[in-house]
Amino acid sequence: MDNLLHKEYKNRVLKLQQSIIKTEADSCIITSSVNIYYLFGQVFDGYLYVLPEGDPIKFVRRPSDIDSENVIYIHKPELIAEHLGDLNIPLPKKVMIESDVLSYSSLMRLSAAVGNPSIENVSGEMRRIRSVKSEYELYVMRECAKIHASVYNKIPEIYRKGMTDIEFQIELEYLMRKSGSVGIFKTFGPNMDIFMGSILAGENAQAASPFDFALGGKGVSPLLPLGANGTKLKSGTTLMVDMAGNYRPLMDDMTRTFAIEYAPDLAYKAHEVSIMINQAIMETSKTGTSCADIYLLAEKIVSEHGLEKYFMGTTQQAKFVGHGVGLEINEPPVLAPRSRDVLLSGMTIAVEPKFVLPGIGAVGVENTYIVHDDGLEKITICDESLIVL
Amino acid sequence: MDNLLHKEYKNRVLKLQQSIIKTEADSCIITSSVNIYYLFGQVFDGYLYVLPEGDPIKFVRRPSDIDSENVIYIHKPELIAEHLGDLNIPLPKKVMIESDVLSYSSLMRLSAAVGNPSIENVSGEMRRIRSVKSEYELYVMRECAKIHASVYNKIPEIYRKGMTDIEFQIELEYLMRKSGSVGIFKTFGPNMDIFMGSILAGENAQAASPFDFALGGKGVSPLLPLGANGTKLKSGTTLMVDMAGNYRPLMDDMTRTFAIEYAPDLAYKAHEVSIMINQAIMETSKTGTSCADIYLLAEKIVSEHGLEKYFMGTTQQAKFVGHGVGLEINEPPVLAPRSRDVLLSGMTIAVEPKFVLPGIGAVGVENTYIVHDDGLEKITICDESLIVL
Repeated sequence: MDNLLHKEYKNRVLKLQQSIIKTEADSCIITSSVNIYYLFGQVFDGYLYVLPEGDPIKFVRRPSDIDSENVIYIHKPELIAEHLGDLNIPLPKKVMIESDVLSYSSLMRLSAAVGNPSIENVSGEMRRIRSVKSEYELYVMRECAKIHASVYNKIPEIYRKGMTDIEFQIELEYLMRKSGSVGIFKTFGPNMDIFMGSILAGENAQAASPFDFALGGKGVSPLLPLGANGTKLKSGTTLMVDMAGNYRPLMDDMTRTFAIEYAPDLAYKAHEVSIMINQAIMETSKTGTSCADIYLLAEKIVSEHGLEKYFMGTTQQAKFVGHGVGLEINEPPVLAPRSRDVLLSGMTIAVEPKFVLPGIGAVGVENTYIVHDDGLEKITICDESLIVL
Repeated sequence: MDNLLHKEYKNRVLKLQQSIIKTEADSCIITSSVNIYYLFGQVFDGYLYVLPEGDPIKFVRRPSDIDSENVIYIHKPELIAEHLGDLNIPLPKKVMIESDVLSYSSLMRLSAAVGNPSIENVSGEMRRIRSVKSEYELYVMRECAKIHASVYNKIPEIYRKGMTDIEFQIELEYLMRKSGSVGIFKTFGPNMDIFMGSILAGENAQAASPFDFALGGKGVSPLLPLGANGTKLKSGTTLMVDMAGNYRPLMDDMTRTFAIEYAPDLAYKAHEVSIMINQAIMETSKTGTSCADIYLLAEKIVSEHGLEKYFMGTTQQAKFVGHGVGLEINEPPVLAPRSRDVLLSGMTIAVEPKFVLPGIGAVGVENTYIVHDDGLEKITICDESLIVL
């Protein structure tokens, strides 16, 4: 296993090195914990200095006990230049940095510390590299999705009549944690605050949120206006469960919907359309499929059933039907009308056609699929029907 | 209450406006959710455009239903200039932006959108403003600390012989959530990944972590190397509980330590010294006290008792004994040897002298105090002794 992992990290670094060469950069300095983990297998506070070839140099602030070669302990970025000099490595003229994530202050300081080279943004490229998973990564994601499904299968045991959405969520969080959920999960971008996932019940599904998730919800705190807000789980309304699949560093994403005692016909209809969209996408997509076409296919099915005004929200409608998933919950590609992405073999996508029905709640299913040359493989194997609680 | 809150937000904006005037800037553009909440009372995705006087303009991307005056909906920052023009507000020549938090890419785009003014970093200034709390904020923090204490008081009921640290943590998280914990809590800086707080048991207290917290721990995931790691709670070892006090947007910070069945004398001794340090700081600190002096006082007591090698870690020792706390868990001032901060009336500080004892675990208490002109007020009222479980 250690040998397999060693190869895994080496391959990942090689992909970035190809990109460094293609960009004609002298080096790439990785600083985000998610990308340091991706390329090195563990998180440290510091700078992963990747040259066009060879083993990257780990400039580490902490922890103090990294067990690896090419580790240089520094307490400030200003020491990088000196150490590069000792190694006979010239300062870069052009360097790739995670400009979408690193703060302006930190980037300016780092840039000055290595002689103010010209800066290329490597954030998108790292996300592009990460979006295509290896066999090992796909194995991890399938394992993760299995645990996710086993947790969702226990939802009927958690539900008690008269609960609020947040009471339900707390019970589910507890079960998730006991099943190995890490709790925290990584997102990309500044407007992605969330705690362990989203539970949407009844009217609250309509509430608009500041965050960049598919749906909203009012939340229980003014600092976290998203998801459950204390809504009582009432007969005839729906309960949408979109909690994190973070049982492994590489995640899956899965939504299932429940009816409290019963649901109006519209809920069953829209839920069935969500399942149909998932099936239609699964039957037609494979390596080479355009992500914009996937969105347009979903939109076509939605309008054939006259459900446009409920699709992906009401007061605020999200203009996408799915996204890549992996170390971060929102990875490329994006399944959106103007996406230029094309499915590649090994990509993992979460497809989440959802409907918000005023007076009822949200309905729909979300599955995670692996892209293969001959089609999509569903890894979130779990009852998709609108289950009555 | 609404009126009180209205005044509260107005006063906060006024403080920032004084700073804008002092800096001779034309405006300040706030983008982080924590500071938008601080100045406006709710979170939105967009730009809070603060002029030297008057009500700030809210340039909002989402949510779509902000109930306030001076709201302008935009879907990209490039539209700000045009709207400012409509309002006869000239583009800024000098603008304050949260450079420590906003990504390089986002800042460059925002800066270009408002005519490439000169940039002043307002991150530190916002943190300085937030570090002095109003009467209302102190009221909220006292309420928060009361709930925090009520949760910690139930720890003996949670403990079961033979548990691991993570099993214990999950039970405590569950209790926290049922007591109103928001789950998520805000931190400042990129190296502050954490999930609901830290539990350190036995040997794991010595493990170094990449993150900027007082102590470490190996964690259960390579993506979150911090805190509990599955260590069995063994007789003769200690269990340090430093879980979030996030029952309100304004938090308190509190650590308590437990002995599993019994603890060696060294644990009792070091724990008593932690309590002594807290008391000595409480008895001598007030408005005007130098934060460096507070650290030096702690260090003096530590060395009088010959505990230097255990203080704030072993393999990796943190060079501070406390920090401000509020909307973020790590606010100014910092109680560190080279800190230039001075205590101001209304500041809230968490004092956490901790010891890591090889073969035993971590011991010590952390309390949150409010700074007054005549001394410190402890708000984390909860048994401080080394409680045997």
